[in-house]
Amino acid sequence: MSSMNDSTSAPKQCDLLVRADAVVTQNDAREVVQDAAVAIRDGLVAEVGGYADLVAGYEPSAQLDMSGKVLLPGLVNAHTHLPMTLFRGIADDLPLMEWLENHIWPVEVQLTDPMLEIGAKIGCAELIRTGCTAFLNGYFHEHVTGNTASDAGLRAVLGEGFFSFPSPSFPSADHCWETIRRLESEFSENPLVRTAVTPHAAFTVSPAELTESYALACDLDIPWQIHIAESPAETATCLEKYGKRPLQILADEGVLTPRTVLHHCVDITDEEIERLADSGVCAVHCPGSNLKLCSGLSPVQRLIDAGVTVGLGTDGASSNNQLNMFRDMALAALVGKIRSGDASAVSAQTVLDMATRGSARCLGWPELGRIQPGCPADMVALELASPNLMPLYNPVSHAVYASTGMEVCMTMAAGQILYLYGEFRTMDIHGLREETRSASQWISERKK
Amino acid sequence: MSSMNDSTSAPKQCDLLVRADAVVTQNDAREVVQDAAVAIRDGLVAEVGGYADLVAGYEPSAQLDMSGKVLLPGLVNAHTHLPMTLFRGIADDLPLMEWLENHIWPVEVQLTDPMLEIGAKIGCAELIRTGCTAFLNGYFHEHVTGNTASDAGLRAVLGEGFFSFPSPSFPSADHCWETIRRLESEFSENPLVRTAVTPHAAFTVSPAELTESYALACDLDIPWQIHIAESPAETATCLEKYGKRPLQILADEGVLTPRTVLHHCVDITDEEIERLADSGVCAVHCPGSNLKLCSGLSPVQRLIDAGVTVGLGTDGASSNNQLNMFRDMALAALVGKIRSGDASAVSAQTVLDMATRGSARCLGWPELGRIQPGCPADMVALELASPNLMPLYNPVSHAVYASTGMEVCMTMAAGQILYLYGEFRTMDIHGLREETRSASQWISERKK
Repeated sequence: MSSMNDSTSAPKQCDLLVRADAVVTQNDAREVVQDAAVAIRDGLVAEVGGYADLVAGYEPSAQLDMSGKVLLPGLVNAHTHLPMTLFRGIADDLPLMEWLENHIWPVEVQLTDPMLEIGAKIGCAELIRTGCTAFLNGYFHEHVTGNTASDAGLRAVLGEGFFSFPSPSFPSADHCWETIRRLESEFSENPLVRTAVTPHAAFTVSPAELTESYALACDLDIPWQIHIAESPAETATCLEKYGKRPLQILADEGVLTPRTVLHHCVDITDEEIERLADSGVCAVHCPGSNLKLCSGLSPVQRLIDAGVTVGLGTDGASSNNQLNMFRDMALAALVGKIRSGDASAVSAQTVLDMATRGSARCLGWPELGRIQPGCPADMVALELASPNLMPLYNPVSHAVYASTGMEVCMTMAAGQILYLYGEFRTMDIHGLREETRSASQWISERKK
Repeated sequence: MSSMNDSTSAPKQCDLLVRADAVVTQNDAREVVQDAAVAIRDGLVAEVGGYADLVAGYEPSAQLDMSGKVLLPGLVNAHTHLPMTLFRGIADDLPLMEWLENHIWPVEVQLTDPMLEIGAKIGCAELIRTGCTAFLNGYFHEHVTGNTASDAGLRAVLGEGFFSFPSPSFPSADHCWETIRRLESEFSENPLVRTAVTPHAAFTVSPAELTESYALACDLDIPWQIHIAESPAETATCLEKYGKRPLQILADEGVLTPRTVLHHCVDITDEEIERLADSGVCAVHCPGSNLKLCSGLSPVQRLIDAGVTVGLGTDGASSNNQLNMFRDMALAALVGKIRSGDASAVSAQTVLDMATRGSARCLGWPELGRIQPGCPADMVALELASPNLMPLYNPVSHAVYASTGMEVCMTMAAGQILYLYGEFRTMDIHGLREETRSASQWISERKK
């Protein structure tokens, strides 16, 4: 992995040399390097290897000693609705449609840009705190989330959502196309922010508009993402409305391709799994949200065995109620075993792959989710001195089963340190607490 | 709740007055007091009420300002095997019997008291860190766990485990009776430590020894606890061995009574649920362990609806892999909905009741699990400034769905502060890290 340094060669330059007890690289061979270091140059990983080799081979401008920690790739959250963090805990213990129609949509339609920004900021703070460095979003007024994430130093793929019926942003779906083009153009020079075309679901967007939006995604060469097969209730709605199961609607419109990202995939048949594998789509598993809304358990191991790329997402904090990828990693492994009836199913390594490499492919950003020369320096450090990570036999097991996410003591994206030992370096957390207090009051008043 | 203080009456004495944004009392009315305070005297709660009232009515020897935090009762872990924390992450993604027989038992039999003590210490540190103040244990050489917990300031109910076949401690079950009597006597003057009679399971302890051990529990007037109906595999074993389902074995021995604590209760029928309700037993739900070992999903809501007292436990860190009651609270709520097919099942309040009052009854210590005058001052504070607890609409929802457990910034048992803002006050955490390193090496060598 580390090219051997000839002791006679001149030291190489790098911006930062990070030392750690171990580096879980998530490279193709899934190597875990012990007593390791990572050299970072221009926001990219220059080299990964033994600390002794790298410290001898580099002249770093700065060093970061993460002894007693293990480095992981920054986790990638492949499905969320960041501004909805405003609704965390506002209505629990309800099924999907009742929750959406009676509690979320009536307030959502009233949200202003300043409110959305506060929600997005809380979300960014939680993502950074819990070791996530990139996310695939879906909501309204997405320029707000784009600017907030970029200011916080996080990578975001923005999904301006639309329905066939009026949304908080648009009177109908076709009013959205111009906004998507504008978003794409607005962030085209921003290396942290990208865009995806985002119809809400097959039962809320007409088949014709699904096709039209897919053509737009092709034209802009960006991902096309949709909620699909989230629950048996959705299947029943689609059958009643179109006489077709949700995935059949997409298949008939010709939009199941490698550009396509399918969120949830809970209520799917074996035949549909084969079709998904053949079509090269990505699927995003959201166990926390699926459990809380009682939508069902996705057959994740079967999707993976069939060859589908599966990423992991938290969904919004309003239905999870966290944006903590470590929590959803544990949930994926734990409920995946029950869904498969096999304690060896959805192993720790499988889940870490979902939350890193799998999610990265869902974002259309496959160079993320690994610590590997030439790839972005997006990394997090886990504090091994936390009692729940003692003793240590296997860092991958600890990341998935033993970590709460709060063991993250350093979060870095594009070589920039966003969080270190309790300090948020790109966000004003104290100011955010005050803003959040006003926002929750604003929402409580409008909820009544 | 707070007796109104007559402004002319003399101030009352207390040892400590704790102020907080809110107190989730878990009293009979489940009151949540806003802008609150708790007065503590002689290790007990003297009064709970509004801060303004209490600060006017008391002359406290000391004050603790937990503004920006919410107080909860210390959580009660009703099923764990503390020294097994040594095995955290040593073998994952395996079914129950393979995991026990091939990975745990071969090393377990070699454990020495110093090794057990290190395991118990790591466990105590994790319990304290994640807001648990009392636990019901089951393992071998239980005096080690008793002394360790007591030194750490935690409440423990010790369960010296036994089988009909040789255990790490005994050649057979009847060698255990004397040890249990000795344990009971050894800790009889220790207000933090109690004892329970602990046969391992209905398929590893003979019916005659179940009955004999139950008589011992009656004689000592202590709880009688057992693993039961943990998985369909256990049911099959019992049917093969005795021609009876696991609970039928206990019923036929006459040991289903209010003294009885049944761990797991996964593979149970509706008829058995009614029988459990009629008999007044306590059941302990262990969702994390049941999921990881793919044992199944306990019908928790049905048990509660039938009138069974249900507590919550983490099980050992070797099959969870955490001892974090906040994690198991979230799991109980999330998978409980799927098990019931109803998003309103196993609500946040139901789960908090399980982890506090329900578990307290399982320990035979019903005055725990609530912040109420006359009850022990066992409390924890959650830091509301953690991004994942922003905004705040409902503290019970946040405790169950949004907290990772690491938001705990203060843990108190019997009025003694065990943990405050990162500092363990009763444990040498730095020394423990060194001890853990040697212990994990010792175990790795013996695992080969």
